[in-house]
Amino acid sequence: MALTVVGSIAFDSVQTPFGARERMLGGSAVHFALAASFFTDVRVVGPVGDDFDPEHLAVLHERGIETEDIERVAGGTTFVWRGHYEHDMNVAHTDDTQLNVFADFQPKLSPGSCEAQMLFLGNIQPELQRDIRRQSSASFAALDSMNLWIETARDSLVAAISEVDCLLLNDAELRMLTERPNLVQAAREAIEIGPDVVVAKRGEYGAALFTADESFAIPGMPLEDVWDPTGAGDSFAGGFLGYLDAVRVTGVHDERSLRQAMAYGSVMASFNVEDFGTARLTHLSEAEIAERLTAFKRLTHFEETPIVR
Amino acid sequence: MALTVVGSIAFDSVQTPFGARERMLGGSAVHFALAASFFTDVRVVGPVGDDFDPEHLAVLHERGIETEDIERVAGGTTFVWRGHYEHDMNVAHTDDTQLNVFADFQPKLSPGSCEAQMLFLGNIQPELQRDIRRQSSASFAALDSMNLWIETARDSLVAAISEVDCLLLNDAELRMLTERPNLVQAAREAIEIGPDVVVAKRGEYGAALFTADESFAIPGMPLEDVWDPTGAGDSFAGGFLGYLDAVRVTGVHDERSLRQAMAYGSVMASFNVEDFGTARLTHLSEAEIAERLTAFKRLTHFEETPIVR
Repeated sequence: MALTVVGSIAFDSVQTPFGARERMLGGSAVHFALAASFFTDVRVVGPVGDDFDPEHLAVLHERGIETEDIERVAGGTTFVWRGHYEHDMNVAHTDDTQLNVFADFQPKLSPGSCEAQMLFLGNIQPELQRDIRRQSSASFAALDSMNLWIETARDSLVAAISEVDCLLLNDAELRMLTERPNLVQAAREAIEIGPDVVVAKRGEYGAALFTADESFAIPGMPLEDVWDPTGAGDSFAGGFLGYLDAVRVTGVHDERSLRQAMAYGSVMASFNVEDFGTARLTHLSEAEIAERLTAFKRLTHFEETPIVR
Repeated sequence: MALTVVGSIAFDSVQTPFGARERMLGGSAVHFALAASFFTDVRVVGPVGDDFDPEHLAVLHERGIETEDIERVAGGTTFVWRGHYEHDMNVAHTDDTQLNVFADFQPKLSPGSCEAQMLFLGNIQPELQRDIRRQSSASFAALDSMNLWIETARDSLVAAISEVDCLLLNDAELRMLTERPNLVQAAREAIEIGPDVVVAKRGEYGAALFTADESFAIPGMPLEDVWDPTGAGDSFAGGFLGYLDAVRVTGVHDERSLRQAMAYGSVMASFNVEDFGTARLTHLSEAEIAERLTAFKRLTHFEETPIVR
């Protein structure tokens, strides 16, 4: 079992109501990989620049993540994102994005990354996602994207979605993509594009999963200390796909595993936001994960008692 | 067992993306009472005008609701609300409100309404809510309110909240009331005002319940056909408190019942939005309620399996 992730490897500068941090290790591939590493063997694919130091690689290596496909571009500079969050922290405001080494990224997967049974295409340009999907021999591929690509590369994105088994999007983006304000209809429309599984990420409200026949929803864990929401969606995806890879999910009909994966995704996202950047996930134990899974189970538990008059 | 509800009895004119209806029977007390009537004996308190016809009373009587405290004001006109919903239907836009008979409402509860063990103070002027709370000998009282009263009658509202056992508010209003953007902190702050139980209603995202020691959350049922969200929050409250009254909830420590009540509240809200006004709840069976409760249980079900590597 192994999971290959392609996505941004970045230096994030973030300001939230609780403080500010400069040039933290971040990016969709990094947040995803750290979360997934608690469940399965993870391989990261993506470019970095000369400014990417051994200490940054070490963060991944300490979690046992394979980095042979992190391509160090001589003379290049690592992708940079700068953003801030308002008081309610539900929306990220991007202040600056510098693609740098990502501008000319030509992905080339090593045999090990090609052969991984599962593939996650993090939020990057849709044609890059398609290129990587073609190289990979994964039996299960999932894709994340964002409003930018819906607005600027819609046809490419729809083609990329048609080539994967699972689509993960924020619920607002799912509505935007399908032009359906109703989430159930939006999910059905997305399934018609190609994927068997559609996951709507809902931020603090949790997430919902749709297949042609079933729906599953999990609320967000009520958290008192939310320090930095950056990477929560990718941490969710990492827990979700990491678990599915660990149990060797056999497809859309393995509904039991999909439900469990949603719970683990929610658990990993709930940890991610408790500190800046990758800080919480690099200091996280399996025991804490198990404890929070129990808390999630308890959070949503009710007994199905009949009406008594 | 009996439940008294005080709130608006209204004629609603509503426009949604799926159509428009004029002068439908509505109001917080009506939506609440219809939902609660599936669980317990309900008594409605509130004023109406000469334009309130026997056919409107009949809608309540058909559900066995006691209407002796619906005061018909001679020469008066029933409360009127006109509103519309945008494409995504998450926010109600009020186009017109005419208080009419509510402007001079002096509530006077009959002995039967005073003696009901449970009281729901629907969204009306906070001093009216306090007046009614003083008249009632209910052992458990709950209160709903809205942004208007937070902005215009804050001190009265806080006093009213301090005198009840349970507060139900939209999550945005709970944040506004407490000036805490974090929902857990907002709920804790609200509990410090007085109530033992705080319920944050989250529209399509479901609801969350907080006590000093516990939290519970339920997602919204993914619904394909949402015709009219008007009254969803009051239907939720009706199912929630109706169930609590039916099982004679003994207080905040009866966590099992609170959780079950949240599920029934969500079920009733999910039905309410499936047709305009009161149409769905006046054509609803106990079998359908039981079926949807099962669907809710299934919606959120996952097994708590350990990480397997």
